[in-house]
Amino acid sequence: MAGNDRRTRVLQAAVDLIAENGVRGLRLEDVADRADVALSLIYYHFGNRIDLLRAVFRYANEVTTVPLMNATPGATARQLLERSLVREVRGKSARANAIVWNELNATAVFIPELQDEVRQTTRTWVEGLEELIRQGQVDGSVRLDVDPTDEAQILAHLLDGLLTQWLVGSLTAPRAQTLIRQAIRSGLSPD
Amino acid sequence: MAGNDRRTRVLQAAVDLIAENGVRGLRLEDVADRADVALSLIYYHFGNRIDLLRAVFRYANEVTTVPLMNATPGATARQLLERSLVREVRGKSARANAIVWNELNATAVFIPELQDEVRQTTRTWVEGLEELIRQGQVDGSVRLDVDPTDEAQILAHLLDGLLTQWLVGSLTAPRAQTLIRQAIRSGLSPD
Repeated sequence: MAGNDRRTRVLQAAVDLIAENGVRGLRLEDVADRADVALSLIYYHFGNRIDLLRAVFRYANEVTTVPLMNATPGATARQLLERSLVREVRGKSARANAIVWNELNATAVFIPELQDEVRQTTRTWVEGLEELIRQGQVDGSVRLDVDPTDEAQILAHLLDGLLTQWLVGSLTAPRAQTLIRQAIRSGLSPD
Repeated sequence: MAGNDRRTRVLQAAVDLIAENGVRGLRLEDVADRADVALSLIYYHFGNRIDLLRAVFRYANEVTTVPLMNATPGATARQLLERSLVREVRGKSARANAIVWNELNATAVFIPELQDEVRQTTRTWVEGLEELIRQGQVDGSVRLDVDPTDEAQILAHLLDGLLTQWLVGSLTAPRAQTLIRQAIRSGLSPD
């Protein structure tokens, strides 16, 4: 098995374990067991526990990318924005990612070494949404009088809050999706 | 010292310790030390660790109440709504409460016995906001075509997301306040 495959297996094993038990229950021994690799390999590839957590969060967030306009012909930018937010509250792998994201945020409050990672990941995600809002102002699907940065941050952090309530069972996935759609409509719709 | 005073001291000690180290670092021995009571007293008053956590979250959320219309003459319902949301992102005690709330939510994902408490607390908070939105539709400060339940949930969970970003240093408190005000304006304003 090539080094890259093993690296990915370790990261995926860590994602799965965090989704099951949270960050604070995560032991490197269990990650090694789940990925079926030697513990020494984890230290070799990732350094310490904090470094592994950083790599896990980066890995989990690679899936959460904002779609590119030119990859989806015929859709307005606002439709793409809606799709990228709504799909975060749908299905089992979205749930695992939501837990990892929720755990990263909650853990980083007490581990300053993780805060840069949270800030960077948040910034990248918000900038992607912001770009779609700007494109929507060009294609006519978004009101011209909204501030793209404000609205991107509002929608991104509304989604964070809704994801948490979905995870604890306060909101169903369809209800969370309805609320996201509603917020997009009242915040961005030109009508 | 009366039983009630000791109970409050235990709860406040637990809030302070959670604000410093999180729920998962919370040991009952440390709570007893901080509150300067016997460990046996904690077991006597609160039962087990989960029961203590439930009581702590209820205690911390008593401070987070939505203001009553008749207690603030001259203000519109929308102004009261804005104040109750904005003051959650302001000052040191708000920060401690935000951490406790954030921790409750994050922990409850993995401890089903806590989920009822989260749901109940969330419901009470959202209903208070919803009531203010309805009153705003009467006093003319809120648009008539919005659904009070939808908007109350959107604003409550936007606040959750903003609080988390404030706690990890992604957003300053004034920036989080600006975004809340902006969301209230675009979601509720009659103009």
